[in-house]
Amino acid sequence: MPTMLAGADDALREQTVATETLLQGHFLKVRRDTVRLPDGATATREYVQHPGAVVIVPLIQDSAAGVCVVLERQWRHPLGRSIVELPAGKIDPGEAPLKCAQRELREETGYTADEWACAGRLHPLAAYSDECIELWFARGLTAGARALDPGEFLEVFTATPEELLHWCWQGQVTDAKTLVGAMWLQNHLHGAWPLQWQRAPQSAP
Amino acid sequence: MPTMLAGADDALREQTVATETLLQGHFLKVRRDTVRLPDGATATREYVQHPGAVVIVPLIQDSAAGVCVVLERQWRHPLGRSIVELPAGKIDPGEAPLKCAQRELREETGYTADEWACAGRLHPLAAYSDECIELWFARGLTAGARALDPGEFLEVFTATPEELLHWCWQGQVTDAKTLVGAMWLQNHLHGAWPLQWQRAPQSAP
Repeated sequence: MPTMLAGADDALREQTVATETLLQGHFLKVRRDTVRLPDGATATREYVQHPGAVVIVPLIQDSAAGVCVVLERQWRHPLGRSIVELPAGKIDPGEAPLKCAQRELREETGYTADEWACAGRLHPLAAYSDECIELWFARGLTAGARALDPGEFLEVFTATPEELLHWCWQGQVTDAKTLVGAMWLQNHLHGAWPLQWQRAPQSAP
Repeated sequence: MPTMLAGADDALREQTVATETLLQGHFLKVRRDTVRLPDGATATREYVQHPGAVVIVPLIQDSAAGVCVVLERQWRHPLGRSIVELPAGKIDPGEAPLKCAQRELREETGYTADEWACAGRLHPLAAYSDECIELWFARGLTAGARALDPGEFLEVFTATPEELLHWCWQGQVTDAKTLVGAMWLQNHLHGAWPLQWQRAPQSAP
């Protein structure tokens, strides 16, 4: 076991010696840095710069079915198909992650939530993106009207945790953040990974 | 529940009407497609084109500690820090995923494995990358010499499944493919998600 699990100040460190913007697209920004490696050699690192995102595990307490989770089916052009995902979205400039989670849940599914709990962070693709996704649980949901962005199309549906985990096992859920959310949900429902719930701060509709 | 969990032929489909290469970097290739949306409007989609990758859950049967999993600590320049990950790597042109898994495990950790089992696939970042990662389990490990790529630096260590899951819960493991591997490991060890093991095909050292 390493003395330090992960850190910024260690023998593996790469020092940035030059940086340039390779691409400023409509959506993607790509940077190329020249770095000095631990052995003194240099190398280049190309990666997407991203403002960060949130993913939400929205829980509905259904009197008949028990707990249900709100999911989406969305077309993902890079894959050429639609996939099942938890609600998620990109953080706006200056936006707090919880505000973003409240906004994305409302826009994409119509739901507002009474209580929220942060379950941690994940890095979807540390090799070539600096994106960090914060994982939030939401409960005490109230249905309302969706407000999708222009050009955004997605279907909203609910499933039991057992269904979601079955799809994860069977390969019908392949989206990484959704798989991680399912792992958290499984351990949370089994009492192993507790959450600290907080009342939702009020936000303008 | 949707009639179809995920698919390529549905009402959410986006049709590609034009395509261009936005960036051909040393490492990253970025494409911009123009697509026709379900409502007839057009939009652009920018995404990284990637050859695919594998991630490996290498299991050591230790007489004292029980099962242990082989992990790495690697510097990730986009994050400006080192993180804990399962062994993983990019598929070479024409390479079968299992061959890639055998090669990456040997190069990065020195281990060869007697038996392998495919646990499925994940999409780390479907919003802006077509990367698909195949998840493989390996067991019956024999230690050997590492053969890191030039400019590749990483530490190899082992942990129990309980340690790995504790770090996932506590936020010390944030790498998405590693979290997904941990979820598979947890369910597999509990007997819920069985694997179909196969003898390793012979490969040149």
